[in-house]
Amino acid sequence: MMSKMWTLKVVGLGAVAVSLSVELLVRLFSHLRAKRTINKVLFFPSEVACVEHLFSTLSTHSCLCPLPHGVETSFSRLLHHLLSASSSLNLCVFSFSEMNLSRALLLLHSRGITIRVLTDKDYSDINGSQIGALRKAGICVRCDRTSVHMHHKFAVVDERLLITGSLNWTQTAVQRNKENILITEEPDLVQPFVKEFQRLWLNNDPAQKQKQ
Amino acid sequence: MMSKMWTLKVVGLGAVAVSLSVELLVRLFSHLRAKRTINKVLFFPSEVACVEHLFSTLSTHSCLCPLPHGVETSFSRLLHHLLSASSSLNLCVFSFSEMNLSRALLLLHSRGITIRVLTDKDYSDINGSQIGALRKAGICVRCDRTSVHMHHKFAVVDERLLITGSLNWTQTAVQRNKENILITEEPDLVQPFVKEFQRLWLNNDPAQKQKQ
Repeated sequence: MMSKMWTLKVVGLGAVAVSLSVELLVRLFSHLRAKRTINKVLFFPSEVACVEHLFSTLSTHSCLCPLPHGVETSFSRLLHHLLSASSSLNLCVFSFSEMNLSRALLLLHSRGITIRVLTDKDYSDINGSQIGALRKAGICVRCDRTSVHMHHKFAVVDERLLITGSLNWTQTAVQRNKENILITEEPDLVQPFVKEFQRLWLNNDPAQKQKQ
Repeated sequence: MMSKMWTLKVVGLGAVAVSLSVELLVRLFSHLRAKRTINKVLFFPSEVACVEHLFSTLSTHSCLCPLPHGVETSFSRLLHHLLSASSSLNLCVFSFSEMNLSRALLLLHSRGITIRVLTDKDYSDINGSQIGALRKAGICVRCDRTSVHMHHKFAVVDERLLITGSLNWTQTAVQRNKENILITEEPDLVQPFVKEFQRLWLNNDPAQKQKQ
């Protein structure tokens, strides 16, 4: 009788230990997954360095341009995250004149990534604007034509990664100003931007009469 | 002999169960704590509504101004988070002319909160700038006097909560433009801004000859 009680207790405790271990492994796994969530901040002005290796199969040291090579900068990190897009890139930016950012969009477009660009009318036609070049390449662009500023500066990569901050997509912003960019996969931060992009995109559909 | 073996096994399994339970509780606790981390996005333009109840002990409905009452807006949420400061507020903002944001800083200052404001020289003297009023009240203000733009628009509350985005602290930005603000307690995002503020603050110390 005593032996049966012991067996029961052992089996009971064993069951508790196994269930706790499974629970623990599940939590550990989700904890490790959470650890991998990207949460980064980049500050500008960025050092100026060669970024050719991000656009081609060239190794960092085989480019012959006079800029420093093999240097990771805020700007090269920004380009790296943009070029990580595998399905879509939604961009909402007040002013866009930086050549390498334009090149990144053209490269993604050539890879078949769906790109949508929403920009402000006041800055789409200025000298050096890249908006015309994007349109010519067949990238879908819409302009906010309301009397207020579409002052956002954010991009959403694959509806998963948010890139946002104070930085307009201009050379002055990248190389001279004090600016910040925040890169995050935190769903509570990314999803509102995914929805806001969709709302603004529909509101600026030139086929729609009703404007904001 | 057999009974001793059983006792050993029971004690061993018991120990495993207890240690796993403790581990589990610790992880559960940290999981619940992580869940409480603030991660919010506010979009602008904000609805215009009365914010008097945030500045006084007035209830939402006892104010007699003609604005809508009892409405939570992007702007009231922004004010609420700023006014939650209990020890410090570090602000780095390109342009600052919005009256209620200025009022919030003056209220925090009167409560003994340590406030430091870093702004851009080009916008500190323009019509409607609140920088002079903050200085007169005794709030510590520094101006970036370099030839480039100090284009940040971020605030760090109690070195714990980051408020950042595209929004300058102007009425046009709040009430008219399309803008965003991100509010987060995520340490990987907050801490770089804490450090960058400190760096910029020291770099713009008027007592220092060496400027960026």
